[in-house]
Amino acid sequence: MHRTKIRIAEGILDANETIARANRDDFDRESVVVVNLMSAPGAGKTTLLERVVGELDGVRVGVLEGDVQGTLDADRLASLHVPVTQINTDPGFGGECHLDANMVRSALDSVPLAELDLLVIENVGNLVCPAEFRVGEHHRVMVSSVTEGEDKPLKYPLMFRACELVLVNKFDLLPHLEFDLEKFLYHLDAVNPGVERMLVSARTGEGIDAWRTWLQRAAVREPATV
Amino acid sequence: MHRTKIRIAEGILDANETIARANRDDFDRESVVVVNLMSAPGAGKTTLLERVVGELDGVRVGVLEGDVQGTLDADRLASLHVPVTQINTDPGFGGECHLDANMVRSALDSVPLAELDLLVIENVGNLVCPAEFRVGEHHRVMVSSVTEGEDKPLKYPLMFRACELVLVNKFDLLPHLEFDLEKFLYHLDAVNPGVERMLVSARTGEGIDAWRTWLQRAAVREPATV
Repeated sequence: MHRTKIRIAEGILDANETIARANRDDFDRESVVVVNLMSAPGAGKTTLLERVVGELDGVRVGVLEGDVQGTLDADRLASLHVPVTQINTDPGFGGECHLDANMVRSALDSVPLAELDLLVIENVGNLVCPAEFRVGEHHRVMVSSVTEGEDKPLKYPLMFRACELVLVNKFDLLPHLEFDLEKFLYHLDAVNPGVERMLVSARTGEGIDAWRTWLQRAAVREPATV
Repeated sequence: MHRTKIRIAEGILDANETIARANRDDFDRESVVVVNLMSAPGAGKTTLLERVVGELDGVRVGVLEGDVQGTLDADRLASLHVPVTQINTDPGFGGECHLDANMVRSALDSVPLAELDLLVIENVGNLVCPAEFRVGEHHRVMVSSVTEGEDKPLKYPLMFRACELVLVNKFDLLPHLEFDLEKFLYHLDAVNPGVERMLVSARTGEGIDAWRTWLQRAAVREPATV
């Protein structure tokens, strides 16, 4: 009796991971550094981008906007003369709550990669699912607004753990809130010890220089390995 | 030739809808009115509950807490001597971003329905998916904080459309924000014309009487039909 040797392929990737790697290859081939920017709804992702995209010295930046519906944020950024591509996650049932690698891949034909050094992907406002889906990015940054309360790292640990930079936004509102900054940072370090963090205010401009410098450096240095 | 008549069952329900109806039947059998409370992370659901659950005249209230991880909110409410049951959506990949009917059903054994007039289900903080999954509730209420910006109804229309009451929270922060209330209400009416809305501040107590009265009335009046 003839015995067939069965080969087992180990480490099979799920579809999202496979497509994320294909996206990453495309980004690397075009030498574009990609940042996945995530937060809860209304934490200030778009405003934090508006504050810096026009002032990145020598860095050609583009934005890929993820929203359930509409082009409100894309319109705001396009008015700054930055190439913006919109992905609406709406065709799904009620709208997908995150971007995945395939949505990003489907949009890449409309992104002028060859003309960019830096692409910021502004994810759908959500503290859960965006952290579960890599899209081929080199860096993951999240925005947490002080108005959301100091318990958020404990309640959404995967998101806070997934990021290498946390922008603590709306810092100008601190005197009007019962937000305990020390407690927030303690919770942050509990889920992602020592993660880089910046206290910023998109409204007053506090901390915006540091955020701009971070992006500038990310755009020119060797991309980190996924 | 014998021809078999094929019967077509119309309006087949999806599994979530089937289970939501079973939950609803249980709630109705026990004469418990159920409110599904939804919002983005950090909009103030728990604090808005803390402000009223101890002061609902003659209404026996319980809370079912949905969170990805932990019991932070449940602990806060339990300290007010209200029966609280916690659902953690964590066992899924990275944590489910919403409650569905089956998660609620799985928790019902731990909810003392026979001892309640009103059950508030505090959903996972998310403006997308919770609106897509009925859990058997009679009423859907959402909290939108003024710190999130006036564009939110346009960006998350399904959520704003799904509700019969919108609590516009953190109203005390208005002087410190560039939030255009008229524009917000205009957008709200664009997606859900005339929906009941209350301007509230869980911190200062503004509008809390109206919110308490709404819950009180919901608990005693004939439940609306889903």
